[in-house]
Amino acid sequence: MLIKQLININKDHVNQIIEAIALVADMKIKLTKSEKKYVDLVLQDASKQIDAKFWDYDEKQEFFKGLKSNQPVSIKAVVGEYQGALQLTIKEIDLINDTEVDIRSLTPTSDWEIESMKKGLQYFYDKVQRPHLKTLLDKMIFATDHYEKFCTYPAARRVHHNFYHGLLQHVLEVLKYAYTVATTKKLSERQMERLIVMAFLHDWAKIWEYKQLPETGFTEEGSMLGHIFLGAHATLNTIEEIEGFDNDDKLIILNGILGHHGKLEFGSPVLPKTVEAQILHHADIMSGDVESILSFMKEEEGKEDSFTGKLWNMGTEFYKKG
Amino acid sequence: MLIKQLININKDHVNQIIEAIALVADMKIKLTKSEKKYVDLVLQDASKQIDAKFWDYDEKQEFFKGLKSNQPVSIKAVVGEYQGALQLTIKEIDLINDTEVDIRSLTPTSDWEIESMKKGLQYFYDKVQRPHLKTLLDKMIFATDHYEKFCTYPAARRVHHNFYHGLLQHVLEVLKYAYTVATTKKLSERQMERLIVMAFLHDWAKIWEYKQLPETGFTEEGSMLGHIFLGAHATLNTIEEIEGFDNDDKLIILNGILGHHGKLEFGSPVLPKTVEAQILHHADIMSGDVESILSFMKEEEGKEDSFTGKLWNMGTEFYKKG
Amino acid sequence: MLIKQLININKDHVNQIIEAIALVADMKIKLTKSEKKYVDLVLQDASKQIDAKFWDYDEKQEFFKGLKSNQPVSIKAVVGEYQGALQLTIKEIDLINDTEVDIRSLTPTSDWEIESMKKGLQYFYDKVQRPHLKTLLDKMIFATDHYEKFCTYPAARRVHHNFYHGLLQHVLEVLKYAYTVATTKKLSERQMERLIVMAFLHDWAKIWEYKQLPETGFTEEGSMLGHIFLGAHATLNTIEEIEGFDNDDKLIILNGILGHHGKLEFGSPVLPKTVEAQILHHADIMSGDVESILSFMKEEEGKEDSFTGKLWNMGTEFYKKG
Amino acid sequence: MLIKQLININKDHVNQIIEAIALVADMKIKLTKSEKKYVDLVLQDASKQIDAKFWDYDEKQEFFKGLKSNQPVSIKAVVGEYQGALQLTIKEIDLINDTEVDIRSLTPTSDWEIESMKKGLQYFYDKVQRPHLKTLLDKMIFATDHYEKFCTYPAARRVHHNFYHGLLQHVLEVLKYAYTVATTKKLSERQMERLIVMAFLHDWAKIWEYKQLPETGFTEEGSMLGHIFLGAHATLNTIEEIEGFDNDDKLIILNGILGHHGKLEFGSPVLPKTVEAQILHHADIMSGDVESILSFMKEEEGKEDSFTGKLWNMGTEFYKKG
Amino acid sequence: MLIKQLININKDHVNQIIEAIALVADMKIKLTKSEKKYVDLVLQDASKQIDAKFWDYDEKQEFFKGLKSNQPVSIKAVVGEYQGALQLTIKEIDLINDTEVDIRSLTPTSDWEIESMKKGLQYFYDKVQRPHLKTLLDKMIFATDHYEKFCTYPAARRVHHNFYHGLLQHVLEVLKYAYTVATTKKLSERQMERLIVMAFLHDWAKIWEYKQLPETGFTEEGSMLGHIFLGAHATLNTIEEIEGFDNDDKLIILNGILGHHGKLEFGSPVLPKTVEAQILHHADIMSGDVESILSFMKEEEGKEDSFTGKLWNMGTEFYKKG
Amino acid sequence: MLIKQLININKDHVNQIIEAIALVADMKIKLTKSEKKYVDLVLQDASKQIDAKFWDYDEKQEFFKGLKSNQPVSIKAVVGEYQGALQLTIKEIDLINDTEVDIRSLTPTSDWEIESMKKGLQYFYDKVQRPHLKTLLDKMIFATDHYEKFCTYPAARRVHHNFYHGLLQHVLEVLKYAYTVATTKKLSERQMERLIVMAFLHDWAKIWEYKQLPETGFTEEGSMLGHIFLGAHATLNTIEEIEGFDNDDKLIILNGILGHHGKLEFGSPVLPKTVEAQILHHADIMSGDVESILSFMKEEEGKEDSFTGKLWNMGTEFYKKG
Repeated sequence: MLIKQLININKDHVNQIIEAIALVADMKIKLTKSEKKYVDLVLQDASKQIDAKFWDYDEKQEFFKGLKSNQPVSIKAVVGEYQGALQLTIKEIDLINDTEVDIRSLTPTSDWEIESMKKGLQYFYDKVQRPHLKTLLDKMIFATDHYEKFCTYPAARRVHHNFYHGLLQHVLEVLKYAYTVATTKKLSERQMERLIVMAFLHDWAKIWEYKQLPETGFTEEGSMLGHIFLGAHATLNTIEEIEGFDNDDKLIILNGILGHHGKLEFGSPVLPKTVEAQILHHADIMSGDVESILSFMKEEEGKEDSFTGKLWNMGTEFYKKG
Repeated sequence: MLIKQLININKDHVNQIIEAIALVADMKIKLTKSEKKYVDLVLQDASKQIDAKFWDYDEKQEFFKGLKSNQPVSIKAVVGEYQGALQLTIKEIDLINDTEVDIRSLTPTSDWEIESMKKGLQYFYDKVQRPHLKTLLDKMIFATDHYEKFCTYPAARRVHHNFYHGLLQHVLEVLKYAYTVATTKKLSERQMERLIVMAFLHDWAKIWEYKQLPETGFTEEGSMLGHIFLGAHATLNTIEEIEGFDNDDKLIILNGILGHHGKLEFGSPVLPKTVEAQILHHADIMSGDVESILSFMKEEEGKEDSFTGKLWNMGTEFYKKG
Repeated sequence: MLIKQLININKDHVNQIIEAIALVADMKIKLTKSEKKYVDLVLQDASKQIDAKFWDYDEKQEFFKGLKSNQPVSIKAVVGEYQGALQLTIKEIDLINDTEVDIRSLTPTSDWEIESMKKGLQYFYDKVQRPHLKTLLDKMIFATDHYEKFCTYPAARRVHHNFYHGLLQHVLEVLKYAYTVATTKKLSERQMERLIVMAFLHDWAKIWEYKQLPETGFTEEGSMLGHIFLGAHATLNTIEEIEGFDNDDKLIILNGILGHHGKLEFGSPVLPKTVEAQILHHADIMSGDVESILSFMKEEEGKEDSFTGKLWNMGTEFYKKG
Repeated sequence: MLIKQLININKDHVNQIIEAIALVADMKIKLTKSEKKYVDLVLQDASKQIDAKFWDYDEKQEFFKGLKSNQPVSIKAVVGEYQGALQLTIKEIDLINDTEVDIRSLTPTSDWEIESMKKGLQYFYDKVQRPHLKTLLDKMIFATDHYEKFCTYPAARRVHHNFYHGLLQHVLEVLKYAYTVATTKKLSERQMERLIVMAFLHDWAKIWEYKQLPETGFTEEGSMLGHIFLGAHATLNTIEEIEGFDNDDKLIILNGILGHHGKLEFGSPVLPKTVEAQILHHADIMSGDVESILSFMKEEEGKEDSFTGKLWNMGTEFYKKG
Repeated sequence: MLIKQLININKDHVNQIIEAIALVADMKIKLTKSEKKYVDLVLQDASKQIDAKFWDYDEKQEFFKGLKSNQPVSIKAVVGEYQGALQLTIKEIDLINDTEVDIRSLTPTSDWEIESMKKGLQYFYDKVQRPHLKTLLDKMIFATDHYEKFCTYPAARRVHHNFYHGLLQHVLEVLKYAYTVATTKKLSERQMERLIVMAFLHDWAKIWEYKQLPETGFTEEGSMLGHIFLGAHATLNTIEEIEGFDNDDKLIILNGILGHHGKLEFGSPVLPKTVEAQILHHADIMSGDVESILSFMKEEEGKEDSFTGKLWNMGTEFYKKG
Repeated sequence: MLIKQLININKDHVNQIIEAIALVADMKIKLTKSEKKYVDLVLQDASKQIDAKFWDYDEKQEFFKGLKSNQPVSIKAVVGEYQGALQLTIKEIDLINDTEVDIRSLTPTSDWEIESMKKGLQYFYDKVQRPHLKTLLDKMIFATDHYEKFCTYPAARRVHHNFYHGLLQHVLEVLKYAYTVATTKKLSERQMERLIVMAFLHDWAKIWEYKQLPETGFTEEGSMLGHIFLGAHATLNTIEEIEGFDNDDKLIILNGILGHHGKLEFGSPVLPKTVEAQILHHADIMSGDVESILSFMKEEEGKEDSFTGKLWNMGTEFYKKG
């Protein structure tokens, strides 16, 4: 039976043979107590991750030695159940050529529709009137080869927005929340425009800090320098290219990018020193925290308890009823 | 020359005599080095506070002994300047009968229009459909003698929303911010309704925690028990009066009120354990922090530096240019 | 050989068959490397917990699917030793009817004698003279259906007083310590009476926060609202029922309950604002910390080192010699 | 009119001349705006401190140049009132010979009766049976020239027990609280004896750390090394003089002294690693905190508010009603 | 009597008239109680600061209105003494033309000899062999208009190295300490060279963050962006100009600059992730802390106590004897 | 094939039989899933640690029951590879008599040459001129039976300098770093000499706090009292034996020993209150941190990633390239 997405495998499939296409997210060679080698894998596609075993390592040694992380494969496997969770016993496994499959279809992706997200970007871009600010956004986001990356990169390594278009979705959330506050509190036109520009750019350098999906994790540059510095650096260099860029705008936008983590202990080298920068900071946390709770609760949906386990970045468990 | 509001006094009035009506916000009897008693006063109206001196204490001893804090008075005074700030030398001072003057016109007041704020309340109330939740809001806010207090009390003692209608304005801001997040993240109808109810009620007990304006400061009950406990207590008792109130709604709304400060060290005895409660918490900080920066920057407007002084609750100075 | 209490099993029983009655505290189905299912259990009675295995899961599948946590069972088992600790290989296992066995005899219980504890309660009750305070204690503890729960519930989920009568024993310790301080420091009669009342009531709501033994863990209400809020809430409602209850006593007793964890970061929404409340707070820690060290040292008694392992809530290991 | 104690001066004395004997606690030469020198003094006796002025510095220049801190003087002065507080305008001031006055009668003193405190010491001493422990107490406290100092020194520089016999009173409180806990929790005889010895010795080195009253403040040795090190050092040396001193007792008693502040950040170089040491630590805080609240509330008695000011070491204000 | 440096004024000058040249570090117009305006000044030169008064403000109103901060003036004044400190009563005060006086001679300056400091820079520069690193130092420090600023700017606003050549002296200290560690621990040639380059550049951006002496305080750019970001930004741009710059060297040097405060809470947006970066961090603290203690102790030299006051950044007082 | 050091075993030896001599660092009896007992060992010599298995426990039960930790053994074993790491399958294992092997050759040892380290000690000793200080060093380090221990003990239990001569190497590093700072900052002769003495003595009591190698871990005295107290105690007693020891030197040296961890929360009961003590503190951290990074990076050398794992005491991973 061909399974379209891993999430479609359910208890009814137990003891049946299924076929599926997935990425090898992780793989380890292990030893049974009787000293026989087997392969312990994690498979994933856009819908979920699942554990799998392959018991005859010795027969397919060459194949597994050549396997890379994030390699797409096709499998035939028996569905089993172990301590309440489904797992697969792989019978056949083969490489798939990159051209035969869209890797993106095997990787977690925002459930927001991409075209409407791009329209959202345009909507906020249009609210910026002053030419030097428009030019800054053009150069950093729209008119350059950055656009593709900006629209596909994740916004985090784990916990929240760690999927295709994650950065784009996060930026739109931040723009929306920040804009609501700004209109409610009747910020001036200049403040409003700067706030929009800062929201666009605050996490921009995540396209340098993270590896390109389906790979996950930090680049060396990302680990050593971080997106806060990299983003302010790129923005300052772009500003310097724009003739007559207003000096106060420059200082305020850069301070907003540097300060968007809100406190020194969270990695901002300076504190946010304008009301725009403080709004950006709070909108950023709001977006990250809410998404991390929602995605965590989705993961914990199957389990029976009335509370989830503890979500480490929130420091508490969550109530699942209601 | 009759001055309508204290904020209208300016450098052009120096050495002139003005007349005005104000509240006596503070008063101390002091001694000159030559051991003569004088009176050091702070006067205030809705527009600002100003220092004043009255040099002949001995002649008006009885009058000043009888003066209470927040007493409205009419004065004649010479305008002076001392270390860059304006101050008054009072020549004549008399009591005003409470009936001759609207004390509210002498007390700081929200610059949001009251009727449109009340419409705002109604707007969000109408989004709540389930009857037991509507009844809860009716009893706590609309259909009771609470309504008047809810619409006039301040939301803080200092820093932010510490003025007439401050609680009302703050609740509307929180409702607006929280609602934007909830629709953006597609919360369920039940979550949305609970979030609205929690936002309405989270600071409700400030009508018990604070004294009624123009008096400021905590009631004894407020100091000893705090609005977090008092609000959850009153809400739970009201819920118990409503037949068939959903149990999950009860736990989630109470947890939201108890947890809205977000962390134990900020006075929440339990952490927010639903996504609604976390949204409420962040919307609450957003409202408080942004208002405290804006009102602080207004205070610092006159001064010449490019940065304000340090705003204690934010831990930093703010940039005034741009 | 019939074993009366699990603690009586010792190294002399190794390789012998024993019979015993115990609760199933925990149970997991696991897989041997050869993919055979077995059952990994934790058994407990009032005296201790012990690990046990049952190797033929397939033969008793139905039995184990029906097993609940805290189910009393009778077993026949071979005693073994694994990495220095005793463990059981179960040969036979059967349900026991609840009527055949007193579950309490299988659950950890205070080693203080229950009747003398009840006399202790009475002793301190008699020190309270003012009628409204006596009525408060009557309603909350003595004259209601609360009394049974108050006398049997645990005072914690783990670490200290987490056994039958644990709350009662803890309250008596707190009363005793607080009373010693109050007499030493010559507190007034009013202060003394309030301190006694606060000590009686400070953890009262643990009868709502915890499940009833032998079940352990929090109720949903307990997780979401916590015993600090619940206790102050119930106390305030009871006070409101008592005509002419002194207002200062009300505020002080409620502040004492709300503040008994001593610091905001430990879950008190307000700080203790009277000397009575501070004494209560310190007596509460004294009772909890001392009991947690003593019970931890008892657990570690068998091991050979001169120090225990680290006790997590104290942050240090303890010296076992001397 | 001769005033026996400064606390007896009241509003009825305003504008009258009083005579009194007091210590000069502090003195500064100041300048009036008209550039005339005057003397600003703080006078104190056992009952309270009071501000005083002497306006003709030039006439008594030699006298004031010779005045030392804690010098006893006799004064004639006019009682005045300034911003609600009483103050003295000194007309005559003269030295008193140390032999004419008991300086102790001019210094704050424990209100516990000295002979009954000494009996208290004896009472707990008698509970220690094992000879090497008795010898340790004999050498450190009873049989040496330490006894006088131990019975007269303060236990702190400010906040609590900062008066004659303060150390003695504090040690008795700690003994009493610790003993109550130890009997309640049925500690072994050996634990009990060690706990008593540790309570006797924990603050012993305050007789080295502080200056002798009426002087206040730290000795150089006290500032540089602290009573925690000095006390453990002296105790270890005394133990080494006692033949056959049990080694576990040695380690446990020294750990108790070193650990009695309970946490590294409060100056204990090691944590308390026995139950005795933890009891000592909590009894020590209980004694210090309760005394600091009580003495602070006494100071604040006169003021009209329902709350005291904030007590810095407790981080909160206290409720004065009830 | 002409006084060469303010530090030369001593008690023998009291009541004499002196002449001196100094900068006006601070100035306030104040009111005597009799409502007469006077001027309260702080004068400074390289040797110290001293308080001064000018009593006839009205006569020299125009002069004082025109006075700027850090204006050099010549004065005639009577030396007085007030509460143990010397102060001046100014009789005559006049502007000095900037050309008549070297402002640097009136500003605090490093007591290290400037030429030997420049030799020190050269000494460490010569230890760097690899051309791309030499070029980086050439462009950032030696071959550009930065050299003059680098050699004259302060390294802090207060506490340590807050004087002419302060940055230069601090960098030399850091180089010396770091080099000692590197040779002791036998770092590789590559590590050593990178460490030297990082030490040269770590505080480089203080020439952008601070105002040019004799002005003190932050530039707007400095307050909003900070020297950590600015320094890494300038370094990265310079590196990009150098062909074939080794990529690992780039990441490590930039990480060293970004991480030199050692912890996020001290303003480093990333942690130091190489041994070179950690050595730099510790050498930087060593230099700052030691200098701040030494300069603080010099300030406190005159006072009689055996301890200084508390040095805020060290959290303690220091022992002056020995 | 006889292997000289465990570090010489490499992938070329896989499936071959090797012979070696090593210490048994750790040993556990475990069960295969088929319930057969085997032995899981960690072997170590001066060069590295390696995992080993012995599968026939039952045949050599007596031998393994008698094995102590740090026992030297000779083995014959087959080299295997498991999850990328080498491990041994032991075929033969026998005790070695202590006289046949130098245990030190099997224990990690400083790679600094011992004779040159001893010369280093002498070098700094010779810089101390004043006789009472020389006598102190003579008694504490050179002229007593302490010398051997001082030169062989480790300076830590893990992380840094946890090897033979570790204390000696650490003290020399601290002396060198501190001396560089002292000469750079032109400390007085007296300060310099005290700093050298303090550096010699600061960790002296580690010879009491740790067990003698090859045993590792704390003595009971070390756990209960700590090297900070023990070191200051021994130093004070030695000072008291030296006639005419300068009192300021005494206080400063003892404060330096007590304060060398720099902050209360790191176990110093008093803060460093002289510039010498602060230099000592920073030199101590510099030595410990740098050594812990270098030794950690050596351990992680084999692995392929560009970053190490996280080093717990530094809170970060380290970059391995460059």
